Amino acid sequence: MNSFGQILRLTTFGESHGKAMGGILDGVPPGYALDFEKLHMALSRRRPGVTPLASGRRESDAVEILSGIMDGCTLGTPIGFIIPNTDAKSRDYDNMRGKYRPNHADYTYQTKYGIRDWRGGGRASARETVCRVTAGNIAAQILATHGITVSAWTSAIGDIVYDGIPECSDAAYTFLTRCPDHETDGLMAQLIENTRRTGDSIGGRVRCSIMGVPAGLGQPIYDKLQCMLAQAMMSIPAVKCFEYGQGRDAASCSGRNSADVFIPSVDGTITTVTNYSGGIQGGISNGRPLELEVTFKATPTYAGEVITCDIHGKPVTLKMTGRHDPCVVPRAVSVVESMAALTILDAMLLHRTTHLK
Amino acid sequence: MNSFGQILRLTTFGESHGKAMGGILDGVPPGYALDFEKLHMALSRRRPGVTPLASGRRESDAVEILSGIMDGCTLGTPIGFIIPNTDAKSRDYDNMRGKYRPNHADYTYQTKYGIRDWRGGGRASARETVCRVTAGNIAAQILATHGITVSAWTSAIGDIVYDGIPECSDAAYTFLTRCPDHETDGLMAQLIENTRRTGDSIGGRVRCSIMGVPAGLGQPIYDKLQCMLAQAMMSIPAVKCFEYGQGRDAASCSGRNSADVFIPSVDGTITTVTNYSGGIQGGISNGRPLELEVTFKATPTYAGEVITCDIHGKPVTLKMTGRHDPCVVPRAVSVVESMAALTILDAMLLHRTTHLK
Amino acid sequence: MNSFGQILRLTTFGESHGKAMGGILDGVPPGYALDFEKLHMALSRRRPGVTPLASGRRESDAVEILSGIMDGCTLGTPIGFIIPNTDAKSRDYDNMRGKYRPNHADYTYQTKYGIRDWRGGGRASARETVCRVTAGNIAAQILATHGITVSAWTSAIGDIVYDGIPECSDAAYTFLTRCPDHETDGLMAQLIENTRRTGDSIGGRVRCSIMGVPAGLGQPIYDKLQCMLAQAMMSIPAVKCFEYGQGRDAASCSGRNSADVFIPSVDGTITTVTNYSGGIQGGISNGRPLELEVTFKATPTYAGEVITCDIHGKPVTLKMTGRHDPCVVPRAVSVVESMAALTILDAMLLHRTTHLK
Amino acid sequence: MNSFGQILRLTTFGESHGKAMGGILDGVPPGYALDFEKLHMALSRRRPGVTPLASGRRESDAVEILSGIMDGCTLGTPIGFIIPNTDAKSRDYDNMRGKYRPNHADYTYQTKYGIRDWRGGGRASARETVCRVTAGNIAAQILATHGITVSAWTSAIGDIVYDGIPECSDAAYTFLTRCPDHETDGLMAQLIENTRRTGDSIGGRVRCSIMGVPAGLGQPIYDKLQCMLAQAMMSIPAVKCFEYGQGRDAASCSGRNSADVFIPSVDGTITTVTNYSGGIQGGISNGRPLELEVTFKATPTYAGEVITCDIHGKPVTLKMTGRHDPCVVPRAVSVVESMAALTILDAMLLHRTTHLK
Repeated sequence: MNSFGQILRLTTFGESHGKAMGGILDGVPPGYALDFEKLHMALSRRRPGVTPLASGRRESDAVEILSGIMDGCTLGTPIGFIIPNTDAKSRDYDNMRGKYRPNHADYTYQTKYGIRDWRGGGRASARETVCRVTAGNIAAQILATHGITVSAWTSAIGDIVYDGIPECSDAAYTFLTRCPDHETDGLMAQLIENTRRTGDSIGGRVRCSIMGVPAGLGQPIYDKLQCMLAQAMMSIPAVKCFEYGQGRDAASCSGRNSADVFIPSVDGTITTVTNYSGGIQGGISNGRPLELEVTFKATPTYAGEVITCDIHGKPVTLKMTGRHDPCVVPRAVSVVESMAALTILDAMLLHRTTHLK
Repeated sequence: MNSFGQILRLTTFGESHGKAMGGILDGVPPGYALDFEKLHMALSRRRPGVTPLASGRRESDAVEILSGIMDGCTLGTPIGFIIPNTDAKSRDYDNMRGKYRPNHADYTYQTKYGIRDWRGGGRASARETVCRVTAGNIAAQILATHGITVSAWTSAIGDIVYDGIPECSDAAYTFLTRCPDHETDGLMAQLIENTRRTGDSIGGRVRCSIMGVPAGLGQPIYDKLQCMLAQAMMSIPAVKCFEYGQGRDAASCSGRNSADVFIPSVDGTITTVTNYSGGIQGGISNGRPLELEVTFKATPTYAGEVITCDIHGKPVTLKMTGRHDPCVVPRAVSVVESMAALTILDAMLLHRTTHLK
Repeated sequence: MNSFGQILRLTTFGESHGKAMGGILDGVPPGYALDFEKLHMALSRRRPGVTPLASGRRESDAVEILSGIMDGCTLGTPIGFIIPNTDAKSRDYDNMRGKYRPNHADYTYQTKYGIRDWRGGGRASARETVCRVTAGNIAAQILATHGITVSAWTSAIGDIVYDGIPECSDAAYTFLTRCPDHETDGLMAQLIENTRRTGDSIGGRVRCSIMGVPAGLGQPIYDKLQCMLAQAMMSIPAVKCFEYGQGRDAASCSGRNSADVFIPSVDGTITTVTNYSGGIQGGISNGRPLELEVTFKATPTYAGEVITCDIHGKPVTLKMTGRHDPCVVPRAVSVVESMAALTILDAMLLHRTTHLK
Repeated sequence: MNSFGQILRLTTFGESHGKAMGGILDGVPPGYALDFEKLHMALSRRRPGVTPLASGRRESDAVEILSGIMDGCTLGTPIGFIIPNTDAKSRDYDNMRGKYRPNHADYTYQTKYGIRDWRGGGRASARETVCRVTAGNIAAQILATHGITVSAWTSAIGDIVYDGIPECSDAAYTFLTRCPDHETDGLMAQLIENTRRTGDSIGGRVRCSIMGVPAGLGQPIYDKLQCMLAQAMMSIPAVKCFEYGQGRDAASCSGRNSADVFIPSVDGTITTVTNYSGGIQGGISNGRPLELEVTFKATPTYAGEVITCDIHGKPVTLKMTGRHDPCVVPRAVSVVESMAALTILDAMLLHRTTHLK
């Protein structure tokens, strides 16, 4: 339940204001040299407290790897890791102890478990995603040695939409909002800043493109590649919509105008002229880039008073405090990449079971 | 891989033109009396050959239940069932044997497995969904005894959109397109008929509402209720997008304007005034109706010639024949309901493991 | 729960006196030609009613394969199959409807599920093993093409023990008791016949040797090869003990005298002089034959009256009737082989996930 | 693969000479107060370096719990924990770097993964069991609140056998060899000491009795309670045999003389006069104590020189050093208890999924 993946399997633990976040990444193939600088950089891209657009919480997010690696190289044994929580200010949340914040997981966790860690969202906090980025970057480094690149960027903040494609992977990270276009980035940053000033929050979208995926990944019927990707993306906090290929617009398209015609490829294999399918046909990758998009809702924390219920069901007034992001999208870009990398590496390992040779 | 669910687990088998489709539904709780008339009706709603809007293939879809039920009552043991294939016309597909139809699974299956049943789509055929409706209806009947109702309907065909909500569950099935509004149904039917005449196909959307779901379902972090639902829906052939609650539009919404304010309910529990969250908060159901929408692309089969590749990678001309639906949406409504019912019953059984009492 | 295996996954259904037994074997690699004569022969070895030593129930055990195979060749898609029940005499069991037979599953099924199919043991009947032999033979045929042979034989009936090893695989099946030694076979047959005459039953043991297993199979820490084999064997009805290598006698052995010394093998790899380890070290196969033994208890059905309780907890007298085996061991030999074959093929497929190349 | 259990799921990490051992126990039900003194005591019972009979390695085995518990009470969220490695003397193993120790996992790990941590057995070291005891004690504490007691003891060392049953749970821990009989304990201690002096090692057995288990646990057909227990026990390093109830001796018993006759119990339920079945019938617990026995082989490390192969397949002489236990059985008693506790709590949680109420 706190695990993701079938062969490559990430299991995480940790409450937002507990001692540490951490996880175990099991099923990592042996013999891959890891670059810890790259891992550090990936974590810094998700870290709060680094830009004026994000939450004020300051975490060093220094990951400590405890096993599974010897002389910088993966052993094939589980990789255990922890990331201590250092800047948790539980006092900020004192007045929320017995009250349910709207749209948060307070009420549902209390109802499901009969108990909850009310400090900073507890287990439901998006701080858990620091474990995903740790594991996801390890997966991405392994994928890179096989010529597979995962690249995500901000495609919308509020009504400001970016329809382009970045020139190269990682390009988005030089932009404040992770939207790889100077003008759009500026508009988006302005919108987030305006939203922050009013104490409100705003949603957006992240597009993800995965290049170099070989044909054949995905396990029909119920573990189609899009099923694995959808589960991965929907597990990210605040995600409300998953699309791939034509996505939601497919409803309006005709079959004849959406046909990805097959042609011989220069290397003797077969490819398609167009990629309406988003790289997946019949649940199996066809060798074309995977194209998907994920929609995030606005952070449910905003400044001000709200009428709500306490844990006894009585109406109360709640003044929401605690640090939060006016828009989670810029920080979520690396989380989307991480979940995509974990999914694709898992699909590659799973596909290995199709044949004995 | 051909299994869905964790506790309630459906495993299916069958190629479109093989001897039979079938499956095993394991984990069904014991002691529920099943109404086989209802099961028969559910299957007839998915069946091809019943309306001018659907494929000409005529299957009786008579399910034979082989185990797991005694005197009409579930035993808690696996329910095995088969549905014979009777109207498979493999000859229609003869000319497709060595050629890849665009957007179908021909190429990806051949690449993954090195072999494929080329007759009528083989394992990748949407005929597999007859097993889902069998199992899903059993799940739905059990849910109904617990006051839970799953209801789906057509919400879009091409650009024709229906934004309403049916007056009662099952209402949609009295309409040809499964859109529960006379005027819109007429327009949609006209669009499908026009599309059929031109030998083309068109996409659409299905909305699904699940009433009576208790609070507490869903297993954080990676088996959130929306993860389970997304995997379920994305596994249906032709689905390109999954949304719940505000869905894709959440990108443009502010946090303050999306707050589902908690209020005491008449029965002493807590409820929310609005349901922007679509019944799920923090991955766990909050007692409000679950609201989701699924987008289907156009059927990839359409009349006419297309340039494609054969299995040796050489360009060839393919004349597509075989029976197909100009729009899969009307028949898909019962498949969406079925997958939703399987998911919710599974989530209820899984939730039972949260506590020992 | 009614499934076995992780990648190669058998799911079965069927009550002893229901319409049919059946199953789905998922994860079978594509491209293997199957010999249905061999499958038929394997089933006949398990079949009741063929020797005076076994139950009088006569089943043709004609398996019907419904999917997953085209032109005799595996497709990589799930293989669905059914075996109709034709000689179920439920009337024999009428007087057991409301009474619990000692050592049977009557009481525990009723307690767990609140309902049970009381006819012939229902789901708990060893008739379910016909599905295991069907699937296990398919696995064995695939293993054989990779040079792996699974061979089992009767090593004990009551106190009559056979310590030898058969000259070749399948040798045991020419003997009535499946003990591949004329003299011992005769003594065992006599013991079973004497037991049958007194209306009693007797236990025994089956040894299994698996030749040609490559080094590297088994997934540490909790899916060690011996864990997978133990689960497989303990799932067979009436099994009370699982041993591999030195087995139970290991308690008395010293480390120095149990060392399997490594030496270079003729083919340039490494092998061991002895095989105290039974082919597994650290949970992983070492290239030597796997050696295991399984102990079966006596059939719990025997002729005569017994004092027991009815389903209301009241003491009653029960006259046990119904057909049964005086000793299950001879028929269990092919079941042990089947479970071993399924386990090894699954382990081979799982091992494929260790590396990406 | 490094995970155990289905609902209650332990995943572990750590190499013997790495930074730390650790794990995540997921699926722990919420609301249980844990006694950390008891956890500390359980760990001390497994710890090396405390008696002259065990390995000289001295580990404080101080567990640090990082999540899943607030104010001493389980939250229902995953419990992450680490146990630092403090007394790892890798230099002792320097000469084993390129050589394969007989009966150890050196060769099989190298073959499977192409790389291994050769220091102190790496991932294959029995040090991993410290994680099992941590998790197992948490499970045992929860079971205790439901009246279920897991109790194990040494039943054999070499040829010295103890057939009795301890007067009370935990009684065994006051004895050096964990055999709860003064005279036998003395003989066993003498045998271990003599074995140690000759630089050799010896095997033995552990019996385990689980009292208070309710009827109904175990999931037919392939997750029978004995399957779950066998997998659990066979995953412990050095285990060669698993038995329950009559065990291996069942081969010689007749059905009539092994019948557990049902009688009404004083509390109105049904019980059995005898317990030949070891508390399990048809794979499901019947309310009687579970009785099982596990056989351990001798530690494969012993003092002296041995001819073996190096990693290039060349014969070499290896002088075995490094600290080791002359007999693992006394320390293994708490590991057996731990695996039993994890299994039973998992079975209880799984059984909850049988019914919706």
